[in-house]
Amino acid sequence: MPQSQTPVDPAGKSRAEPKQHHLVVVGAGFAGLALVKALKAPGLRITIVDQRNHHLFQPLLYQVATTILPTSDVAWPIRNLFKTRQDVTTLLGEVVGVDTSARRVALKDGPPLSYDTLVLATGARHSYFGHDEWEGAAPGLKSLEDATTIRRRVLSAFERAEVSQDEAERSALLTFVVVGAGPTGVELAGIIADLAQRILPKEFRNIDTRQARVILVEAGPRVLPAFPEKLSAYVDRALARLGVTVLTRHAVSSISDSAVTIGDAGTPARTVIWAAGVTASPAASWLDVEADRAGRVKVERDLSVPGHPGIFVIGDTACVMRDDGRQVPGLAPAAKQQGQFVAGVLKARLSGRSTRRAFSYRDMGNLATVGKGAAVVDFGRIQLKGAIAWWLWGIAHIYFLIGTRSRIAVALSWLWSYATGRNSARLITQRDVHAGKP
Amino acid sequence: MPQSQTPVDPAGKSRAEPKQHHLVVVGAGFAGLALVKALKAPGLRITIVDQRNHHLFQPLLYQVATTILPTSDVAWPIRNLFKTRQDVTTLLGEVVGVDTSARRVALKDGPPLSYDTLVLATGARHSYFGHDEWEGAAPGLKSLEDATTIRRRVLSAFERAEVSQDEAERSALLTFVVVGAGPTGVELAGIIADLAQRILPKEFRNIDTRQARVILVEAGPRVLPAFPEKLSAYVDRALARLGVTVLTRHAVSSISDSAVTIGDAGTPARTVIWAAGVTASPAASWLDVEADRAGRVKVERDLSVPGHPGIFVIGDTACVMRDDGRQVPGLAPAAKQQGQFVAGVLKARLSGRSTRRAFSYRDMGNLATVGKGAAVVDFGRIQLKGAIAWWLWGIAHIYFLIGTRSRIAVALSWLWSYATGRNSARLITQRDVHAGKP
Repeated sequence: MPQSQTPVDPAGKSRAEPKQHHLVVVGAGFAGLALVKALKAPGLRITIVDQRNHHLFQPLLYQVATTILPTSDVAWPIRNLFKTRQDVTTLLGEVVGVDTSARRVALKDGPPLSYDTLVLATGARHSYFGHDEWEGAAPGLKSLEDATTIRRRVLSAFERAEVSQDEAERSALLTFVVVGAGPTGVELAGIIADLAQRILPKEFRNIDTRQARVILVEAGPRVLPAFPEKLSAYVDRALARLGVTVLTRHAVSSISDSAVTIGDAGTPARTVIWAAGVTASPAASWLDVEADRAGRVKVERDLSVPGHPGIFVIGDTACVMRDDGRQVPGLAPAAKQQGQFVAGVLKARLSGRSTRRAFSYRDMGNLATVGKGAAVVDFGRIQLKGAIAWWLWGIAHIYFLIGTRSRIAVALSWLWSYATGRNSARLITQRDVHAGKP
Repeated sequence: MPQSQTPVDPAGKSRAEPKQHHLVVVGAGFAGLALVKALKAPGLRITIVDQRNHHLFQPLLYQVATTILPTSDVAWPIRNLFKTRQDVTTLLGEVVGVDTSARRVALKDGPPLSYDTLVLATGARHSYFGHDEWEGAAPGLKSLEDATTIRRRVLSAFERAEVSQDEAERSALLTFVVVGAGPTGVELAGIIADLAQRILPKEFRNIDTRQARVILVEAGPRVLPAFPEKLSAYVDRALARLGVTVLTRHAVSSISDSAVTIGDAGTPARTVIWAAGVTASPAASWLDVEADRAGRVKVERDLSVPGHPGIFVIGDTACVMRDDGRQVPGLAPAAKQQGQFVAGVLKARLSGRSTRRAFSYRDMGNLATVGKGAAVVDFGRIQLKGAIAWWLWGIAHIYFLIGTRSRIAVALSWLWSYATGRNSARLITQRDVHAGKP
């Protein structure tokens, strides 16, 4: 690169060519994207690294798993989002460690990346509470592959039941267990029940898909524990109307390819979906710093890592406290706010201003849906349920999607699904690598 | 089932409850679907078996492989197509053999299926001309999984080139070889070149994607050998304009993960796609009857199998001769015509009429496209090329898609792609099981 021709000002600030500063952002989820979008500064070069080539709109991933949306409606190529940002380089790569003293990020393939500032926004993955052996039989829902795996298993269960001549086998194939009654679990159970009750019955000749059982298991006392009790009760009734059996205060003690033990009772079931717990990415172990029980890095008020002012952790990988002592929830709006906040901190630092700021979470409310026409919205003082909440839920999700094409495509898929009952993506694709599963 | 209450007519025909006749159709491609759609008769029960849960619109599959269309735009659940046909049962199953004396079809999983009449419409798969070891390094394009595999490899090659610091490695990653210059090969090469030249350049920072080489290899003397020479020459020029290197009269003698030997010269290339040859499904060996060199069953003039009047073979699995001694081509319209023809034969048989009919192929013309605004259409006496042919190609493909939703979705994806250069499905999904490939 040619030497700068700008004469160096002895004061070293105002007239000098800005010093190149390299920011590495790991993870292009809501937090990482929001940060890069909000941050552009003279002399700042940004590299965004992700192990996927796409940003995933997680809040609608369960609709891919349940045939309503095609994979391409909820995922966008990351580098396409920064096409016009010459200061941003996108790299597909898997981070395997951080050398904080040499300020380098180690990639699984390819040379290490040097950074001046590092932001880890690597999200979370499912946690099986020490039972990792359950993962094969009970996949969670974090990636497009997880979604197509669940879709394949749900659809294959109906297909295999149609062929089966063994009554017990048929019954096990038509039993679907969803573990965990947070928003994802509730939404999955609701749509699987809807598939069995409304979408599929006319298409099978040997089985009555309405005989399928959908069981939603929750260890806590009620569904949607993060919502007010009144809304939980409404969702509980909505699930019952859809034909979902809700078992609260029930823990799962074993999961195999053929059965689930709920409490003390074994239930033969061929399809189990895990929506019960998440654990943070291994960012804390890369940095060798303190983490909470869920593996999240305990960050400072400005979201930097204690002892490492040049490293920030944001999104689901960070344990951030609110003023009232509660934790900031693992929701998309919280992740975005953290990304935007760190963008502000870095802008101030790069221009030499003081940065004694503390992150403050603005609660934008919480939404969940249970099926056609039923949803709950919690704005704190204002709480909505039913059709109004459902419309609000739909509009909010379309609004937060990235790009016009996705908005049109999702709206079209929804319209089609709700008007005709023909879901857009009822495809069984890829073989399952897990033994015994289709 | 209750006994029929209809008194039996001694003549045994006119007034009797029609005898139940079970038709088993294996394969829900163009031939099998057309047959079932056209055939409904009293007393006839139809079972359609496919190893996939979806019908695939093969003519546009290459657009899935090249990021233009999402998987769900070209595939429909088979059982959904026959939702209102109570006489049709759809089974997901893999046929592994036929017992012609017991009149039973053996399935890999599940009990065998008894039939009165059997139609095999099991299509074709790629043929590596005795070099099956090439399949891992050079996937063909027959299934949705093939398409997502090719999509992943093409996109990953650009991603890996962006990270690579080795000039030779980078060059090999940016070399794409398509083997076979029939319509699929031409279309794949054209779009990969378009991706490299027009869609991707602004999104990469370390590489110039316009340096990518796309090589189309054809053993014969010209591209699109099934088209008139004049149209081949036009396509040849169109490919050159897109930046594709066309090597006709060149044979591929070896393919590995790192290089392709074309003629005598080794070309380092990390992405190779096979579009050179197909072989019929193993229907001939199931039936233990004579096949041609491509494995197709030599059928009678009424498309039944010699010596087995109750078994028909149609579509790409059948070797059907035209009156002029040429073979009926392996195209969607030919497969559909065969399905409709056999529907007519069976209708006649079931109503006791004579069925001495012979299949006659109506040539509806042949189309191929080479990229934005360029296509060729061969109607025999009338030949078109350029923009008019391209519009005709697009309209014909939209028209032949199944269902309104697919038509809207494909039209939307095309419109978006051509207007904005943002393809709908630029996703890298699933890991490659083939060693050394992303």
